[in-house]
Amino acid sequence: MTSDDEGSRFGPDRFEVVYRIAGPPDEVETRAKQIALEQTVEMPDEVVTDAGIRQHIIGRVERLTPLPDGASSATISYSVDAAGDDLTQLLNVVFGNSSIQPGLRVEDVRLPGTYLRRYRGPRFGRAGLRDAVGVKDRALLCTALKPMGSSSEELAELAYRFALGGIDIVKDDHGLANQSFAPFEERVERCVDAVERANRETGLHCVYAPNVCAPGSETLRRARFAAGAGAGAALVMPGLVGFGSMLELSLDDTAQLPLLMHPAFLGSFVAQREAGIAHGVLFGTLARLAGADASIFPSYGGRFAFEKSECLAIRDAASTPIAQLRPIFPAPGGGMILDRVPELLDVYGDDIVLLIGGDLYRNGHDLTRNAARFRDLLQARTTSAP
Amino acid sequence: MTSDDEGSRFGPDRFEVVYRIAGPPDEVETRAKQIALEQTVEMPDEVVTDAGIRQHIIGRVERLTPLPDGASSATISYSVDAAGDDLTQLLNVVFGNSSIQPGLRVEDVRLPGTYLRRYRGPRFGRAGLRDAVGVKDRALLCTALKPMGSSSEELAELAYRFALGGIDIVKDDHGLANQSFAPFEERVERCVDAVERANRETGLHCVYAPNVCAPGSETLRRARFAAGAGAGAALVMPGLVGFGSMLELSLDDTAQLPLLMHPAFLGSFVAQREAGIAHGVLFGTLARLAGADASIFPSYGGRFAFEKSECLAIRDAASTPIAQLRPIFPAPGGGMILDRVPELLDVYGDDIVLLIGGDLYRNGHDLTRNAARFRDLLQARTTSAP
Repeated sequence: MTSDDEGSRFGPDRFEVVYRIAGPPDEVETRAKQIALEQTVEMPDEVVTDAGIRQHIIGRVERLTPLPDGASSATISYSVDAAGDDLTQLLNVVFGNSSIQPGLRVEDVRLPGTYLRRYRGPRFGRAGLRDAVGVKDRALLCTALKPMGSSSEELAELAYRFALGGIDIVKDDHGLANQSFAPFEERVERCVDAVERANRETGLHCVYAPNVCAPGSETLRRARFAAGAGAGAALVMPGLVGFGSMLELSLDDTAQLPLLMHPAFLGSFVAQREAGIAHGVLFGTLARLAGADASIFPSYGGRFAFEKSECLAIRDAASTPIAQLRPIFPAPGGGMILDRVPELLDVYGDDIVLLIGGDLYRNGHDLTRNAARFRDLLQARTTSAP
Repeated sequence: MTSDDEGSRFGPDRFEVVYRIAGPPDEVETRAKQIALEQTVEMPDEVVTDAGIRQHIIGRVERLTPLPDGASSATISYSVDAAGDDLTQLLNVVFGNSSIQPGLRVEDVRLPGTYLRRYRGPRFGRAGLRDAVGVKDRALLCTALKPMGSSSEELAELAYRFALGGIDIVKDDHGLANQSFAPFEERVERCVDAVERANRETGLHCVYAPNVCAPGSETLRRARFAAGAGAGAALVMPGLVGFGSMLELSLDDTAQLPLLMHPAFLGSFVAQREAGIAHGVLFGTLARLAGADASIFPSYGGRFAFEKSECLAIRDAASTPIAQLRPIFPAPGGGMILDRVPELLDVYGDDIVLLIGGDLYRNGHDLTRNAARFRDLLQARTTSAP
């Protein structure tokens, strides 16, 4: 037991991480204790002599539960003081060194409201993004400008046609960066102009979302440029720029853009069942904590291997109540086709951003008509609803 | 074939990525072609009509080779124009969306010298870091300040004792960020003072390396503060802040600090044999490209599960000639103990930073004596060498 004096160095608030631990159940208690040390003091238990650190800072194994598949669930709590105010350090406590341990997976992260007050979360969230595109009661339509190698002028022409067809969000393909064939600033200006021209013709509120990812603080600079040029959202890949950079964009009062999180370079966290971070945590909980307003992920039945249950976990984590963090849009994509729109809406519901890229290009060359067909599929559902 | 006109939109230079593809050999050609599309145009092959994009931008399957274990090796080349000048976009082309594909692993990244000219690489490298600590001919000694929860004053006292014992690099434990118990700026100032005080007594050149990781551009701000306060190096975790943030630090003329890369939150890339990024590429090639001067990794035989061969791959990738990129120090750690120093030097050689943390705390309470014993183990080898 520690004295009150020692207690006063650290606050009482703790957060919990639920880990799945593979391997024999009789080793689980030892492994859980090792994780609790590894993620905090990172030294042998017997060397830690300070009573306050022992009581508060060393992770605490709260519960061990056998799982039906033979693995175990270990709930470990950490002092919020170990994470402090930096999102990067929170992630470090959750899974910094332990990410290197095989057979260990983060299944849940549970943050107390007192700690969550340090975060604003999504600036726009679902309601704010709906306001931005002027759509109240149906799924939002999203598509991507491609292929890489096209000029800014060509991409802007595509943006125009898609916006004319009624797409709500026209985003850069995630591989458009600042290449010579379509430099960032030139591309942003042209695509913004193209979408605004279409909006004047349609009376709609399509927004263009450029990819602002770049090394270091250049990401913030590009986001600010995009906002200044009239872009209505931004595409961010925390796998490439870090969750902390996305957080910074979400807090920046100069940029003030809805953020579409994209999963590129995050795949290794979810490419295995026994390690990494659970889909809902990575693409839902952490996305919201780091300020994403929509979270793009590869839906089941497309070019990637996510299972339906994993996709539904993302959908649910995007809106489950977490203190003041606004609900965000799950944005299934990754090889979705028009023919599956009714099914996807049945499965995910209407509070999604539905991302269809390649299939709009494949279905004949009239992109505006293809976009309009996409829109009709969503409108049809809305009007046929009770 | 394309005309000269089309060719002129894109340069001829290409880089190669070698992927390991799990699964039946008869599916490998199809999978390789899918990767080549996924990582570039991200749309069905038949929809890409532009001849220049088809010839230059779509990834090109160069070689397919069966591997002894039944998997296959696929070498795919990409135009350097697809990556442009941004390191983040290079990583995106290498493994952005494909990271989400199960059974796919990056085994090698081969960049032509013409492209590498866009990178400075490590500012210091081995020679520069040796100069900084005044050590010509032996492995460098590194230890960590811990445990988390200690005050700045306590950590500074540890730094003093370690420096007094002859440690070359005293780094923050990677879990020290900007917590209330040891705020970043206060900690940096106190630890710098402590190490300078010890250096005055010993005549040695110990450097203190604070952890500068933070959300977004705050990382750069902290590195600049650290440099201004007199820190001699910085600890960076690209898993948390992105490789692009490390690159930015390496290029920053205000900070100008040797960078110690730490593997936290990168583990999911290497926690599986069939997916992710090969150890040498992640902790060697990409570390150098992004400007690290030393690359910390968990050595075989410690608390983590790296195999000896994987560790040697990191060692080799840290120094294999890559255009003008300086060789850097592999820095094995993660549960190393003093008793293993001779073995580790035999295996890794003397061009390493040897990181021993917890064991220095465990071996009695006289940290200065423990550090001196660590130093003696390295000196003994140097003096006994032919």
